[in-house]
Amino acid sequence: MSSKISTWLESAVETPIEMSSRIRLARNIESLPFPGRSQDEEKFAQLVQDMAIHLEGYQQVDVRKLSYEERGVLVEKHLISPNFAKHGHACFINEDESISIMVHEEDHIRIQSLGASVDMNEIYAAAEQVDKILEDNFKYAFDENYGYLTACPTNVGTGLRASIMVHLPALASTGLLQQFVSNISRFGFTLRGIYGEGSQSIGYIYQLSNQLTLGQTEDEIIDNLLELKEQLIEEEISLRERFIGEHEVETRDRIFRSLGLLRYAQTISLKEAAKALSDVKIGVDLELLTLEKFKFQPLIQMIQPAFIKTLIDSDEVLSVAELDKKIDERRATLLRNTLGG
Amino acid sequence: MSSKISTWLESAVETPIEMSSRIRLARNIESLPFPGRSQDEEKFAQLVQDMAIHLEGYQQVDVRKLSYEERGVLVEKHLISPNFAKHGHACFINEDESISIMVHEEDHIRIQSLGASVDMNEIYAAAEQVDKILEDNFKYAFDENYGYLTACPTNVGTGLRASIMVHLPALASTGLLQQFVSNISRFGFTLRGIYGEGSQSIGYIYQLSNQLTLGQTEDEIIDNLLELKEQLIEEEISLRERFIGEHEVETRDRIFRSLGLLRYAQTISLKEAAKALSDVKIGVDLELLTLEKFKFQPLIQMIQPAFIKTLIDSDEVLSVAELDKKIDERRATLLRNTLGG
Repeated sequence: MSSKISTWLESAVETPIEMSSRIRLARNIESLPFPGRSQDEEKFAQLVQDMAIHLEGYQQVDVRKLSYEERGVLVEKHLISPNFAKHGHACFINEDESISIMVHEEDHIRIQSLGASVDMNEIYAAAEQVDKILEDNFKYAFDENYGYLTACPTNVGTGLRASIMVHLPALASTGLLQQFVSNISRFGFTLRGIYGEGSQSIGYIYQLSNQLTLGQTEDEIIDNLLELKEQLIEEEISLRERFIGEHEVETRDRIFRSLGLLRYAQTISLKEAAKALSDVKIGVDLELLTLEKFKFQPLIQMIQPAFIKTLIDSDEVLSVAELDKKIDERRATLLRNTLGG
Repeated sequence: MSSKISTWLESAVETPIEMSSRIRLARNIESLPFPGRSQDEEKFAQLVQDMAIHLEGYQQVDVRKLSYEERGVLVEKHLISPNFAKHGHACFINEDESISIMVHEEDHIRIQSLGASVDMNEIYAAAEQVDKILEDNFKYAFDENYGYLTACPTNVGTGLRASIMVHLPALASTGLLQQFVSNISRFGFTLRGIYGEGSQSIGYIYQLSNQLTLGQTEDEIIDNLLELKEQLIEEEISLRERFIGEHEVETRDRIFRSLGLLRYAQTISLKEAAKALSDVKIGVDLELLTLEKFKFQPLIQMIQPAFIKTLIDSDEVLSVAELDKKIDERRATLLRNTLGG
């Protein structure tokens, strides 16, 4: 696993507000106990081996053999979950890194499909295709009434989580986002930080996703999600327009100061860098500036700690504090080199 | 009076820490009551007229005929006092604006001589020369025991105030400057803000000057002042060196962020701009960056409110708040244009 940006993301065209989308399917094998109920290494290894036969073109990754940083990079790329980075064993990743399949995470099989600047239905179709290959070869735990059975009851039914990453600085800076969150929760949707459950938002990036997997078809879930996304985008745009109309100088000032910061800082934290990148992205969206090399989502990924750590030559043994300092410095260098005036 | 930088300042070579120096002589005419004791317009006008005959090459300025901004610019150039800008009438200013003579300020005559990158004794000699011309033609109030008599007893004796402007960011950022101030006050010296008595420091610029005018000769006062200045410079340099040794990245970061700020901000207050210029000046002093167009003292003067106001075309009538906003914007533009990357 290299610490380069995933091909699917690098080749994506950036648009305002909407970033990447993700589909996750939770599946289990009928004949095996749920992962949390069994530590049968042999059966587990057999499943991985059997899956590998059917997953042509996928790289099989043994997470245990990766360094701490390499695992971190996979998390930052959204290819594995933070929990899987700690305790997971095997996963499969396709060539452009748009699809990953974790084996023995919370469920036996978790299929993930990622994409940007493409329709969510396409992303779902890609996941479905993998799902079909596996379903043809393994007997899934499936109930006529409930649907797909999963380790945690919240995933029972479709086993589907669809999520869309959105950049909402205007909504987040006002109280309006909070209001939106409490509104959508009543319909079984939620808005979380950039790395999912329990994670903080950085750079005003949020994940909009469904919480309910039961009682709705896959298409209904996706359609509702897309509708909510359109609402969010509309509100974010109108707020931005109102703000730039009323506070033009302040908005320009904030955007250009942030660009100056990214081009001049010698050391910068993740949080500060993400905030500044968010400001510059608003500037690009509002056409207040043009920056050829600026791509928000890849940059947000490149400034993450594990990504940066892989760039640091470490012949010397560093203390945690020294390494943190080096990361902030290396991040600043990367930003200056990428966005240099 | 143009809103350009004074010639003497523009042509000065910048050095680290030490900025410009100033000599002020307070003199009074024996036959006239002190200004505070008399509003005899006729005698006052006569004095101005008589002085003009002997002050060849000086421009006579009637402060009352100047706009509010023009008077402000004279204050910002240190050519007249803030009080004189409000209530003064006549002053004389030489061509390179290194000498100004206020008539009927607190005393009948206040001779001021300014200079940078020259010996203070030269600056004093220039003031003395004017003093000599006037003393040859007017009978000064002088007492054999006390020396020159002045309106305020604190100026009796030499009537001399010698001051040196110094840039002390390292000393000011620690508690050490306060300690220095209380030490020197015991020897009759003081450290004040950039515009003298009661003014705040901006950009970590301070004026070191004598408070005692009695019991010491002019030469003794100047010698002692120069000695204190050397001490200050030495302490500032050693503090800077210690700091950059211990916190190299942080120092570089602060300096370059400030440069980025000055090059990118769309609106900026005097205080923030002065602080950023101070940071960049440290960078230049420490040779961490080279900036051809950067001259600290002229820039500090150019960002002052009256200076900036003269640059604003104001066909429209602006409210105070609107004007303040425009000043901050115009200041940012000036800084971007002068320091542009």
